[in-house]
Amino acid sequence: MQCTSTIADMITIDAARLSRSIQDFGRIGTLPNGGVCRLALTDAEKAGRDELVRRMQSLGLTVRIDSIGNIFGTRPGRDADAGTVMIGSHIDTVSTGGLYDGTLGVLAGLEVIAALDDARLETHRTITVAAFTNEEGARFQPDMLGSLVFVGGMALQDALNTTAGDGMQLGTELKRIGYAGSEEGPRDIAAYFELHIEQGPILEAENVQIGVVSGVQGISWHEITVHGRSAHAGTTPIALRSDAGLAACLIVQRAYEMSRAIGPDQLMTTGTMRLKPDLVNVVAEEAVFTVDLRNPSGDALKQADINLLHIAEAVAAETGTRVTCRTLARFDPVIFDKRLVDSVEKTAQSLGYSTRHLHSGAGHDAQMIARVAPAAMIFVPSAGGISHNIREFTSPDDLARGTTVLAQLVSGQAELMKE
Amino acid sequence: MQCTSTIADMITIDAARLSRSIQDFGRIGTLPNGGVCRLALTDAEKAGRDELVRRMQSLGLTVRIDSIGNIFGTRPGRDADAGTVMIGSHIDTVSTGGLYDGTLGVLAGLEVIAALDDARLETHRTITVAAFTNEEGARFQPDMLGSLVFVGGMALQDALNTTAGDGMQLGTELKRIGYAGSEEGPRDIAAYFELHIEQGPILEAENVQIGVVSGVQGISWHEITVHGRSAHAGTTPIALRSDAGLAACLIVQRAYEMSRAIGPDQLMTTGTMRLKPDLVNVVAEEAVFTVDLRNPSGDALKQADINLLHIAEAVAAETGTRVTCRTLARFDPVIFDKRLVDSVEKTAQSLGYSTRHLHSGAGHDAQMIARVAPAAMIFVPSAGGISHNIREFTSPDDLARGTTVLAQLVSGQAELMKE
Repeated sequence: MQCTSTIADMITIDAARLSRSIQDFGRIGTLPNGGVCRLALTDAEKAGRDELVRRMQSLGLTVRIDSIGNIFGTRPGRDADAGTVMIGSHIDTVSTGGLYDGTLGVLAGLEVIAALDDARLETHRTITVAAFTNEEGARFQPDMLGSLVFVGGMALQDALNTTAGDGMQLGTELKRIGYAGSEEGPRDIAAYFELHIEQGPILEAENVQIGVVSGVQGISWHEITVHGRSAHAGTTPIALRSDAGLAACLIVQRAYEMSRAIGPDQLMTTGTMRLKPDLVNVVAEEAVFTVDLRNPSGDALKQADINLLHIAEAVAAETGTRVTCRTLARFDPVIFDKRLVDSVEKTAQSLGYSTRHLHSGAGHDAQMIARVAPAAMIFVPSAGGISHNIREFTSPDDLARGTTVLAQLVSGQAELMKE
Repeated sequence: MQCTSTIADMITIDAARLSRSIQDFGRIGTLPNGGVCRLALTDAEKAGRDELVRRMQSLGLTVRIDSIGNIFGTRPGRDADAGTVMIGSHIDTVSTGGLYDGTLGVLAGLEVIAALDDARLETHRTITVAAFTNEEGARFQPDMLGSLVFVGGMALQDALNTTAGDGMQLGTELKRIGYAGSEEGPRDIAAYFELHIEQGPILEAENVQIGVVSGVQGISWHEITVHGRSAHAGTTPIALRSDAGLAACLIVQRAYEMSRAIGPDQLMTTGTMRLKPDLVNVVAEEAVFTVDLRNPSGDALKQADINLLHIAEAVAAETGTRVTCRTLARFDPVIFDKRLVDSVEKTAQSLGYSTRHLHSGAGHDAQMIARVAPAAMIFVPSAGGISHNIREFTSPDDLARGTTVLAQLVSGQAELMKE
C-alpha cells in the first residue's frame, strides 16, 4: 500500500543516533587538534571505508564496490525494475578537514535506512547509499573523481593511472587498501539526493535552516605568469622597470573591480601568489598567481574569463611585462533537476523549516550524477561558513533537520510501503 | 716636490693588468655557471681574503686586520701626520654574485698603488686600501657591518654576536677563518674614495661614462602583514570576506600610485609576497609582503612612509582586514662631501669622460665612512643595470676609466711627490 501522504508521521530521524554516528566516525583519522585527515586511499581512509562497510552490513545492506572504489550499500525495494533512489556523498577529507564535509551525506543516508527499519517500512523502489572515491581532490586530481568515472566522464584506466603529489598511483593504492572492486553500481537511478554542509556563511548569516540548492556554479581557474626583469630596487628608475610583482598586483586589483562590476554572483579569488626571486630589494622577474572565477551563469563566467585575459594583457602592456595564462580547471555551471529542487523546497517548508535557494559554490558528487540522472542537494548551515578546516561545525539540530528533509524526500521518491 | 698639476701625465693605469686582476680574483668562489659566491666569512671568502692579503703584501703594503675583520693595506706617505687617503670597498658577494660589485673598488685600489709604484711616485699623505667585512648583508645582517663598526655606529660585541641564517655566529666564523684581528684601522682619514659599478641602468641608458655620486638615497623597508579570514573561494560572497590576498594587492597598487605622485625620485618595490594557506580555492587568511621605499630626500621619504601606512589602514578598513606594519630597515639619505664630489666631476671631465650626477640607490661602505670623514664615490656603468647576479658586467674600458679617475683623485688628495 502506497502512503506518501503521511510520510512525515511514518518515519522519524533519531537526532541523537545521527550525532553519535558522525562523532564516532570522526575518530577515524582524527588529528591531535580535533580535525580529521582521511585523504583518499590512505590507511586512515581505508579504516573509514571498513567502518562504513561494517555499518552498512549491520543495517542489512548489500555492499558492492566498483572498480574505482566507490562503495554502494543497497536496500532492495519491492519492485527491482522500478529504479533506484540514491543517497550519496564521500568520506574522504582534505588534510586538515572537519567531521561533516562529505561524511554527513553518507551517514545521513544510513540514518534514513535505520529510520525506515525502525518504522518497519519497505519501499517500492530500491534505495542505495553511495560513498564516492576521492571527491576532495586533495590527494589525487581531479576532484569528484569517483563519481566522474561512475557517470562515464573519465575513463577508468586514466583514473587508475592518476598519480598523487606523494608519487603514489591511484590504482596501486586502491589495490593496496583492498578497495579495487569488480562490481557495478546501480545504473537505474531515478533520483539522487545529497545532503551537505553549505561550506559558506549564507544560511547562518540569514538565519535560514535549509538551503535549496538550485545548481552548482561554474568554475574557472586561471594561472597567470607575469614575466618581468629582475632589477635592483634601489638603482632602477620606475620607468626602466619590468616589475612582475607590481603587474601581478595591478591585474588582481582590476580583476576584482571587473568582478564587482559583473555583480554579486561573480566571485573572484587570488589565493596563491609567488614572486621570484622573492627578495625585499630585488624587482621581481616573475610572478605566478591564480585567479579563481565562479558564477552560476555560464555566459557571465565566460565574459569574466575574457575580461580577465584582456586585463592581464593591458597591464602587461602598461608595465613592460609579458603575461602567459593557463587554464587550470573549467567547469560549466550545473542546474539541478527542477522537479527535485522544487520537492526539496516544498518538503522542507512542509516540515516548518525556513528555506532559501542558493547555488553551490563548491563542487559536489551530485553535479556528476546530474549528468545521468535527476539530482538535487540539501544544504545545512556551516558555523562561520568554515569548511575544509578542523573548526568545521554544524549543530546537531541542523544535522537532524537536514536529515529529516532527506528522509522525507527519499521516502517520497522510493514510495513507502507498509511491511 | 708637489706636482698635482701634471698628475694625469705622471700616473697611468694598466687596463689589461686591472682586467686580469679582476678576472683572476673572480675565480675564487666561482660558481659552475660563471658567477661568484663569496658569502662573508665562508671558506670561499677566506680564500679571497688570503689572496687579497698576498697581493697587498706583494705590493709592499703593510697589512692590518681589525677586530671585525676589516683588512687595511697601507702605503706610507712622507708625512705620517698628514692624514690618510683611503680607497675602500668589499670582497664579499651575495650567493649568486658577479665579479665587480665591491671587488672592483678594492682591486682598483691595488691598481692605483701599482701605478704609483710603476711611476716611482711617493705621496705626501699615506694611502690605505680597505676591504670591509660583510658589506652585502647576504649572510649576516645588517649589511655594511664592517664599515659600520669601523666608524663606531655599532658596538663590536653586538656585531660579533650577530647570527647568520645558517646558525653560525659572526665572531666564531671570524676566528675560524683566522681574520679576528687585533690591530686598528686608520683614524686619520683625510678623504675616502670608493669606485663601484652603478648596479643600475642609468649610465648605460644615457651613454654616460662616469657617475658622480651625490649621495646615497634614504631607504625604508616595510613588512606589512594583512590578517584576514580563510574562506572557501566558491561559497563565500565577496561582501562577507576578509580577503588578505586582495587587500595586499590593493595596498601595493595604491602605494605604487602614491609613489608615482611623489615623483620619479621616489622608488617603490614589492619584491616579496606570501599568501596563507596559498591554495587556489581558499581566500587567504594572511598575506605578508614588503615595500621597499627609497628617496634621496629625507623629507620626501618620510612622507612616503606615512602615506604607505595610511594606505594600508584605509585598505584594511575597506576590506574588513587588519594590518600590522614592521620597519625592517631605515636609513636616512647620505649627502657626500661637496668638495670631494666636485673633484670627482672635474677630474672625470678633465680626462674627457662624460659625467652625470646621480644618487646611489644601493647602500655602500662609503656612506658609513661619510659619518666620520669626507667621502665620495665614482660609478661606472653596469651592463643592463644588472647586479647581484652572475650576469653582472662592466666593460674593461669602463673599468679602466673609473680606475683612472680614482687614481687621479687619490693622487691629488695624497699629493704626489717624485721619489
